[in-house]
Amino acid sequence: MRTVDLIRRKRDSGELTREEIGELIAAYTAGDIPDYQMSAWLMAVVLRGMTRPEIAALTESMLHSGQVLDFSGLAGRKVDKHSTGGVGDKTSLVIAPIVAAGGLKVPMISGRGLGHTGGTLDKLESIPGFNVNLSLADFRRVLQTCGCSLIGQTAQIAPADKKMYALRDVTGTVESPALICASIMSKKLAEGIDALVLDVKTGSGAFMKNVEDAAHLAELMVETGKSMGKSVVALLTDMSQPLGRSAGNAMEVVEAIEVLGGAGPADLRELCLELSAWMFFLGERVKTVDEGKKLSADLIASGQAREKFREIVGLQGGDAGVVDDPRRLARARQTLDVTSPAAGYMAAIQCEQLGVACAVLGGGREKKEDSIDPAVGLEFHKRIGDPVERGEPLCTLHYNAGARLVEARRLVETAYRIEPEKPKAIPPLIHRAAIS
Amino acid sequence: MRTVDLIRRKRDSGELTREEIGELIAAYTAGDIPDYQMSAWLMAVVLRGMTRPEIAALTESMLHSGQVLDFSGLAGRKVDKHSTGGVGDKTSLVIAPIVAAGGLKVPMISGRGLGHTGGTLDKLESIPGFNVNLSLADFRRVLQTCGCSLIGQTAQIAPADKKMYALRDVTGTVESPALICASIMSKKLAEGIDALVLDVKTGSGAFMKNVEDAAHLAELMVETGKSMGKSVVALLTDMSQPLGRSAGNAMEVVEAIEVLGGAGPADLRELCLELSAWMFFLGERVKTVDEGKKLSADLIASGQAREKFREIVGLQGGDAGVVDDPRRLARARQTLDVTSPAAGYMAAIQCEQLGVACAVLGGGREKKEDSIDPAVGLEFHKRIGDPVERGEPLCTLHYNAGARLVEARRLVETAYRIEPEKPKAIPPLIHRAAIS
Repeated sequence: MRTVDLIRRKRDSGELTREEIGELIAAYTAGDIPDYQMSAWLMAVVLRGMTRPEIAALTESMLHSGQVLDFSGLAGRKVDKHSTGGVGDKTSLVIAPIVAAGGLKVPMISGRGLGHTGGTLDKLESIPGFNVNLSLADFRRVLQTCGCSLIGQTAQIAPADKKMYALRDVTGTVESPALICASIMSKKLAEGIDALVLDVKTGSGAFMKNVEDAAHLAELMVETGKSMGKSVVALLTDMSQPLGRSAGNAMEVVEAIEVLGGAGPADLRELCLELSAWMFFLGERVKTVDEGKKLSADLIASGQAREKFREIVGLQGGDAGVVDDPRRLARARQTLDVTSPAAGYMAAIQCEQLGVACAVLGGGREKKEDSIDPAVGLEFHKRIGDPVERGEPLCTLHYNAGARLVEARRLVETAYRIEPEKPKAIPPLIHRAAIS
Repeated sequence: MRTVDLIRRKRDSGELTREEIGELIAAYTAGDIPDYQMSAWLMAVVLRGMTRPEIAALTESMLHSGQVLDFSGLAGRKVDKHSTGGVGDKTSLVIAPIVAAGGLKVPMISGRGLGHTGGTLDKLESIPGFNVNLSLADFRRVLQTCGCSLIGQTAQIAPADKKMYALRDVTGTVESPALICASIMSKKLAEGIDALVLDVKTGSGAFMKNVEDAAHLAELMVETGKSMGKSVVALLTDMSQPLGRSAGNAMEVVEAIEVLGGAGPADLRELCLELSAWMFFLGERVKTVDEGKKLSADLIASGQAREKFREIVGLQGGDAGVVDDPRRLARARQTLDVTSPAAGYMAAIQCEQLGVACAVLGGGREKKEDSIDPAVGLEFHKRIGDPVERGEPLCTLHYNAGARLVEARRLVETAYRIEPEKPKAIPPLIHRAAIS
């Protein structure tokens, strides 16, 4: 096998065999194939696609590039949630504690910021001391102690995905249903879970801009998960505008803590209740999704979910004091308002552009070696359908010295469309309740 | 400018500005953009194409990534030829000495093996001692002394192209008219030439498989060259079968010496006469192309062209004795015949596959760091339309220990199509005489 021939075959819309994909992934993981060949192959995959057998082979070779965890010795069903990523999506920080507080086990292995989207790990690391790099032994210990642990991919878990994920981020090869499916499912199937809730985003801030593409990805993932014997459902949820009121690592932690405290933005709270309800349902903790929703709301109202978050933060070395005093988190030194040039209604938002603006301020990565500024981010003041006055702030940029402010500001300014009439259709928060 | 955004825009069929292309090329050349980003961008270019303004911007930024030579102080018109590459194409080794013997200056900067094709530099380096890495001062000195010098790209000449050429070779991003045009023209325009003859190959062993694609590339290059004030013509020539009787570095040098001696395969001799005729014509050494052809034949017959080759080899540190005794070149230790499974006629040849087989034997590169075995190669016994007996050798593999013989043999075996009837159409050697 000459790597360049595999690249060329995919470039020319050909199909690779199970064995060829296995060899390619194994050799890349071992460092025998350089990044520059893999990125060319990935771009060819993005533009040419993969067949179902290719996707299955890719997922499996990525899964078996590392260790597959086994938590069957721990009491309780193991469930997890995964989102395909968007702008301002901090649901993991809310639902993991809710579901653990409800008695299920949540062994959550998350990713970092990818392209214009944020990453759970980057958000968690904005909590002083929080260690997402636990050993697998510590992961198990925290999971056993409090029912939940949130870590990054270790060297042992799907190392192929870890390496490819970082490369895709900086080579414009994120937006491929095949690659997204294989990346997510290889990592999730390695977690030793019984059930998985997939939050597949659609809209201008999602990788899948329209509902059909999102549904396609959802089906790919559900099919792959079920073929491995797991309970899997997928929800198609909206990303035509940011979720909640902020994007940016520390700012999103603040917002998650608000929701755990019974407050916070309505859309974020609603989606968190829905997702945790499905986790309770698949985890056989409740008989119906509605019952799961009620349980989730109760766990917030009673303070148990918030207490669980405090416990997790503490067990993973973080400053649990932030839960009561979010001002202990990093804050940007300066702010700048982007205001509306006209009166009218918020008609549409280029949500991805807002994500890029956040990254440009330092909240995301351009190259995989780049470091992140946890303090910076965007604060959103208007949702689609909201009335807007001329000169009224649409978005506040939180930035530090040295940020590429001009570029970020231009991105934000051009992300909003104001129209004189109120838009007829406001996108629903949840497009489809379940694909399974 | 975030590199990943430029990659993504091209991936999504967008256009890059002149400034963006300039920055991209400058940053890559300076090492500020890693190979893995450039290869993803290159794959996007291969699959999405470039507009004419993008190609012009790319060519110019690659040209000006280094030094542009000025030979206006040397007497005589400076002319060069460039081939888009094929299997067994050793014309440069023949026509450079012919044209120099005829009184023009040939400052030829060539490339290495790329994909399935050979490279003039690799062939020259199979001559013991031959130094293709002359300084620009030595290049000028040899050019002044004998009218011709053949070197590789120096660090000063189009460094952007040198770096990109090596990367494209191993990432399946060779086959793009835009990239091929920019690569060729940036290097050739840096040579300080007045005129350029382009030999654009078409057929199963060319990058452009059909005449239309080849004509498109030819037009791009002629347009680019003329816009920079040069005399440029392009010939569309056949590569549906190997040129001459061999592919492989030392073996091709032997064949070139045969043609310079008045012998050698008819197709190779014919093409060399045609190409040098056009060089004499554009170089204003003759009034018509026919006159140029006669001059070329005379320079071979008189032995002057062969003597010129000897002179060049000597001036560039090579063993000029190989011209009289080609056995001084490296020879493979073993041979293996691939024979015909049936009687009939040679109907078609997967010429590219033969080039890959030569590379698999060690005659070409898989990764840019790979070294080449100058001795190995393929010897061709049949041309399209030739009668073939069952069991008769079609091709002889010349190989050394450690070669991936099984793979090479399979490639060669499946490269030939034998039919019971003589094929009606035999591809012409020259498809179109000139595009200008």
